[in-house]
Amino acid sequence: MTSNENAPVTVIGLGLMGQALSRAFLKAGHPTTVWNRTPTKAKPLVAEGAQVAPTINDALKAAPLTIVCLTDYEAVHELLGGSDIDLDGTTLVNLTSGTSAQARQAAQWIEQRGARYLDGAIMAAPPAIGTAEAVILHSGPQRDFEASKPTLDALGMITHLGADHGLASLYDVAGLAMMWSVLNAWLQGTALLQTAGVDATTFAPFAQQIATGVAEWLPGYAEQIADNAFPAEVSALETDARAMAHLIDETKAAGINTELPTLIKKMADRSISAGHGKEQYPVLIEEFTHPSDN
Amino acid sequence: MTSNENAPVTVIGLGLMGQALSRAFLKAGHPTTVWNRTPTKAKPLVAEGAQVAPTINDALKAAPLTIVCLTDYEAVHELLGGSDIDLDGTTLVNLTSGTSAQARQAAQWIEQRGARYLDGAIMAAPPAIGTAEAVILHSGPQRDFEASKPTLDALGMITHLGADHGLASLYDVAGLAMMWSVLNAWLQGTALLQTAGVDATTFAPFAQQIATGVAEWLPGYAEQIADNAFPAEVSALETDARAMAHLIDETKAAGINTELPTLIKKMADRSISAGHGKEQYPVLIEEFTHPSDN
Ligand SMILES: NC(=O)c1ccc[n+]([C@@H]2O[C@H](COP(=O)([O-])OP(=O)(O)OC[C@H]3O[C@@H](n4cnc5c(N)ncnc54)[C@H](OP(=O)(O)O)[C@@H]3O)[C@@H](O)[C@H]2O)c1
Ligand SMILES: NC(=O)c1ccc[n+]([C@@H]2O[C@H](COP(=O)([O-])OP(=O)(O)OC[C@H]3O[C@@H](n4cnc5c(N)ncnc54)[C@H](OP(=O)(O)O)[C@@H]3O)[C@@H](O)[C@H]2O)c1
Repeated sequence: MTSNENAPVTVIGLGLMGQALSRAFLKAGHPTTVWNRTPTKAKPLVAEGAQVAPTINDALKAAPLTIVCLTDYEAVHELLGGSDIDLDGTTLVNLTSGTSAQARQAAQWIEQRGARYLDGAIMAAPPAIGTAEAVILHSGPQRDFEASKPTLDALGMITHLGADHGLASLYDVAGLAMMWSVLNAWLQGTALLQTAGVDATTFAPFAQQIATGVAEWLPGYAEQIADNAFPAEVSALETDARAMAHLIDETKAAGINTELPTLIKKMADRSISAGHGKEQYPVLIEEFTHPSDN
Repeated sequence: MTSNENAPVTVIGLGLMGQALSRAFLKAGHPTTVWNRTPTKAKPLVAEGAQVAPTINDALKAAPLTIVCLTDYEAVHELLGGSDIDLDGTTLVNLTSGTSAQARQAAQWIEQRGARYLDGAIMAAPPAIGTAEAVILHSGPQRDFEASKPTLDALGMITHLGADHGLASLYDVAGLAMMWSVLNAWLQGTALLQTAGVDATTFAPFAQQIATGVAEWLPGYAEQIADNAFPAEVSALETDARAMAHLIDETKAAGINTELPTLIKKMADRSISAGHGKEQYPVLIEEFTHPSDN
C-alpha cells in the first residue's frame, strides 16, 4: 500500500480537530475540500489551499472519501441523516468520539443509505495530527480500510482493528483506562513519597521504569488468560494481598487518599475468597469480567 | 566503587528469599556464613560452599556485613532484640518486607545497640536474585550504603534512595501500586474487549504500548507538580471526564465490572468540582493528597 498524495479528500467539521485533520491532508498534498456549519472556520484553511464546498452535498461529491469529525454522534446524525443528503457511493470515515454502540448504529444507517462506512477514534490531541505520535484507530470492513489507508496515512499512525465497527471506540476507552490508571498510580505514589520529603520529579523516573517493566509482562500474562490457567510462576495472589495491606497502612499513616489502594485490595481479596490465592495475578480477569453493583 | 568478591558476608534467615540471597553471594565468590532458626534449611547451601554458624552471635561475628531476611519485623525484633545478641560494630542490612514506620523503628533500636543499619526492599522474586532483573532498594546513611554496596552488588540492581530509613518501604509500595494499577487497567480492557470477541493476546500489545507511552510523560508531568501549575497543554481534565463517562457506559453495556472506571471518574469529578476542569490531569495530585473517609 503506497500513499497517494493526489487522492482528493473531504473534511466535514472544522472544530479544533477537524482543522488539524484538514491541515495534515493539505500538508501531505491532498486536494482537500472542507465544510463547516459555521463557515468562518474554513477561512484559515482556504489560505492554506483548501476548497470550501457551498453545500454538504457538494462536499460529499468533491472526493470519494469524506472524513467526519463533529462534537458527537447526535451531531453526525443531525447533519447527515436527512433524506436530502446524498451519501450514495461515498466512503465516510467518522472520527467523532462515541461509544461502540453508537458506531455500530451509525454503520447501519449510513450503509443503508448506500455509503461505505469506517469508524475511527483519534488517540491524540490536534497538534500531534500529521505526525507518527498520532495513533488513530479504525474499524469496519477490511477492504474499505485498505482503499482509504493511502489517504488516511497523512493523519498519523493508522491502525485497522477489525470489521466490527465498534472496535475503535472500545480500544479507545480501554487505552484511556490504561492512561488514567498509570497516571493515578503515579499520583498515588507521588502523594505518598511527598510525605517523606521526596519530590515529584525524583519519584517520576522510578514510576516510569516500573510501569514500562510491568507493561512488558502483559503479552505473557495474556497467554495465561488465553489458556485459562494461572500458575504462580513469579508470585501468588495472596503474597500480593499482603503487600496491598502494607500499601493501605502506608497511605493511612501518611494521611493521604486511600481509595485506589482500597479498591486494589478489594478486587484481590474477592478473588482470594473465590479460592484463587495460590494463583497468579491475571486470575483477577474473573473479577473484572463479573458485573458489579455500582 | 568496585565490587569486592573477597568480602565476607553473613545471611540470617534462610527462607525462600534468604536462600536465594545466600546463593547469589556464593556465586559471586563471597565467603558466606548462614544461620537459620530451623537449621536443616542450611544444608543445600553448605553443599554450595556456605559456612553454618552455630549461634547468631557467631554469625554476626563472621563478617562485617549481615543481611537479615525474615518473615516480618516482629521476627527480626524477636531474633535480634535480646540483650544476649551482640550487634556492636556490625552493619545490618534488613531486607525483610515491612512498612516505613517499622523500618524507622528498627533503625532506632539497632543503632542504639551500636550497629549501623540499612533498610531494604526486594522488588523481585527469588529466581531473579543475582541478576540485573532484581531491583533492590536501600535506604539509610549514605556512607554505610557506599561501604556495603560492593558486596550488595552480588544481589542485583542495588539502589540507594536516601538517608531516611523509611524510603525503601515507601518506594516499594508505591512501585507495587503502579504494578497493580497497570495490571488492573489491562484486565479491565481485556474484559471489555473480550465482550467484542477480541482475544487477551490481541489486546495485550496495544495495552503495553499505551502504558509505556504514558509512562514517558511522567517526568514532564512531575514538573507541573513541582511548579504547582497545570496548564492544559495537551488536554483539559473536563475533556478526560467526558471520555471517562464513555468508559463507564461501555463497561456497563458490556455487563462487566465498573468499579475501577467509577473510581477513575470520581477522582476527576471531584477535582472538576474544586474548579480544576480547565487544567491538566496532574492537578489531581490534590485529590490523591487529601485524606479520604474509607
Ligand atoms: N480536540 C481533541 O483533543 C480531540 C482528541 C481526540 C478526539 N477528539 C474528538 O473529535 C471530535 C471533534 O472535537 P473538536 O475538538 O474538533 O471539537 P470542537 O472544536 O468543539 O468542534 C466541534 C465541531 O462539530 C461541529 N458541530 C457540532 N454540532 C453540530 C451539528 N449539529 N451540525 C453540524 N456541525 C456540528 C461544530 O461546528 P460549528 O463550528 O458550527 O460549531 C465543529 O465543527 C469530538 O468527538 C472529540 O471528542 C478531539
Ligand atoms: N519470596 C519472595 O518472592 C519475596 C519477594 C520480595 C520480598 N520478600 C520478603 O522477604 C522476606 C522473607 O521471605 P521468604 O519468601 O524467604 O519467606 P519464608 O520462605 O516464609 O521464610 C521466612 C524466614 O523467616 C524465618 N523466621 C520467621 N520467624 C522467625 C523468628 N521469630 N525467628 C527466627 N526466624 C524466623 C524463617 O525461619 P524458619 O525457617 O525457622 O521458619 C525463615 O527463614 C519477607 O519479608 C518477604 O516479604 C519475599
